[in-house]
Amino acid sequence: MRAICLEQSTICFNADYSSPLVGTGEVLIDVIKAGICETDLQLVKGYMGFSGVLGHEFVGRATSGEFQGQRVVGEINCNCKNCSRCDSGLGNHCADRTVVGILHHDGAFADQVAIPQSSLHLIPDSITNDQAVLIEPLAAALEIGIQVDFAAVRKAIVLGDGRLAYLCAQTISQTVQDLRVVGKHELKLERFQRLGIETVKLDALKCERAFDLVVDCTGSVSGLPLALKLVEPRGTIVMKTTVAAEHHLSLAPIVIDEIRLVGSRCGPFDRAITMLEQGRFDLSGLITHRFPLEAAKEAFKTAVEPDAFKVVFEVSQRQ
Amino acid sequence: MRAICLEQSTICFNADYSSPLVGTGEVLIDVIKAGICETDLQLVKGYMGFSGVLGHEFVGRATSGEFQGQRVVGEINCNCKNCSRCDSGLGNHCADRTVVGILHHDGAFADQVAIPQSSLHLIPDSITNDQAVLIEPLAAALEIGIQVDFAAVRKAIVLGDGRLAYLCAQTISQTVQDLRVVGKHELKLERFQRLGIETVKLDALKCERAFDLVVDCTGSVSGLPLALKLVEPRGTIVMKTTVAAEHHLSLAPIVIDEIRLVGSRCGPFDRAITMLEQGRFDLSGLITHRFPLEAAKEAFKTAVEPDAFKVVFEVSQRQ
Repeated sequence: MRAICLEQSTICFNADYSSPLVGTGEVLIDVIKAGICETDLQLVKGYMGFSGVLGHEFVGRATSGEFQGQRVVGEINCNCKNCSRCDSGLGNHCADRTVVGILHHDGAFADQVAIPQSSLHLIPDSITNDQAVLIEPLAAALEIGIQVDFAAVRKAIVLGDGRLAYLCAQTISQTVQDLRVVGKHELKLERFQRLGIETVKLDALKCERAFDLVVDCTGSVSGLPLALKLVEPRGTIVMKTTVAAEHHLSLAPIVIDEIRLVGSRCGPFDRAITMLEQGRFDLSGLITHRFPLEAAKEAFKTAVEPDAFKVVFEVSQRQ
Repeated sequence: MRAICLEQSTICFNADYSSPLVGTGEVLIDVIKAGICETDLQLVKGYMGFSGVLGHEFVGRATSGEFQGQRVVGEINCNCKNCSRCDSGLGNHCADRTVVGILHHDGAFADQVAIPQSSLHLIPDSITNDQAVLIEPLAAALEIGIQVDFAAVRKAIVLGDGRLAYLCAQTISQTVQDLRVVGKHELKLERFQRLGIETVKLDALKCERAFDLVVDCTGSVSGLPLALKLVEPRGTIVMKTTVAAEHHLSLAPIVIDEIRLVGSRCGPFDRAITMLEQGRFDLSGLITHRFPLEAAKEAFKTAVEPDAFKVVFEVSQRQ
């Protein structure tokens, strides 16, 4: 089968990669579409030391199991279901987990991917494939609302104008009235403006400590120092993106100002699917570029360009 | 008057320092005792860029005002009482505050210190001066219980075997059954053992991610990386000490494991006084060394030695 692999920090298209070995309880999925995420870009920079088939945001069709022949998306954490964390509902944090396209588990930038049946979610007919491929990052955005009580937030700011920021801002704006988004790119910020969300260019941002919620979606080590300049005392900073690089900064302000820093990763797929069905998110126009798997290098090059928003691999002709 | 000043990162005893200017609403306090805190040691290393009279942990006698002639302790944040933060009960985070012995306000390593009347707390007769001088750090330790729900904590660990760790461990142990303290110094750890608190030497610590609460009282940049090795996914790290140095570390684990990092500083003096009256803290033997103000250099040298716990300046003969 075709697959896009990461080998020694290099993206390689492979026309003749071995089909995935299907483990116990796993289902082979025919991938329809798969999206490039900031984490994929960090993986290429060396984050997690991953090698293998990339890709963890996808929609596909189950070839067997309960959902055979139907469209599905898959959660990315494949846990052991046998440890105390799995037992206590913290399966996403299972120490023995593999993570699709990120940790010891071949991903979805391929014709097929093997996913545990228990990680699969059926896609209702009302949700398009272009929407479904965004369910994984949408769920991640919704995770913030589980960790932070939006109803108690007075003034929020999202750092970053990229794909995840777009989903996080829509999540927050459903509850928090006073929200703005700061970014570097006029074109990207216009997308937020079209949703009625206030934006500010980074170079015009007044660094006052006025926000009780700051969400860092920059995917950059510069995000946290900026967040610390904006968060008010006793406020909360949500760290939404992982970066491969080390941070070099003084954390004394966290103590002095009694800041809460909250790491936030994967979220509830079922809630994301329900909210999409209810039309509560506008994902139109988020996908700006589409490539076949064969154009792996071009796709990854495009994904870091300022005019790209979501870059998607169109894997299968059959939708 | 006599005073211990910090000038260009150097400790100086001054036998003839000007008495404090007493501002509106302030009361001149005759200092009885004042303790050296980890923050003082960080200030000497350049933290906050402070110059002036050091010292913020003290007990003294009010020379005027509501408590004239009586023993008092003083909160360290002197706020404007006029801004939105002060109005909303966040006076400790007032942007225009001065901080006794730390920020634009001469401290208590002197015969006299000027403190706002509103910052003073009367010391009941049942509390000794040796206890009262520890109320500021005890209040800081109690702050953790306001920020973290101890009742929900399964397994806690305190990093550091110093003065603040001793107070934090006693605070946590009142609610959390499974608590241990990790430190480098056998002699210091024995103090915790005498309270019935389990201890472990740092070089014998098994770095497993098993604690849902980790409290960093190390006063060192090495504290946070160690905390990240011990905290379980979705767990909480409380940062209790400020350090002058920058951190150089990867913060990706905070995101991946959805850790909560909580900065924690000053706490409730009234609660500390009440709990001391109730005999709920054992502070006996905490003070290991006593010096006159004149022995400033020796006192600061002693405070960093492994056998020193709390070093106190005995300022006034009249107790």
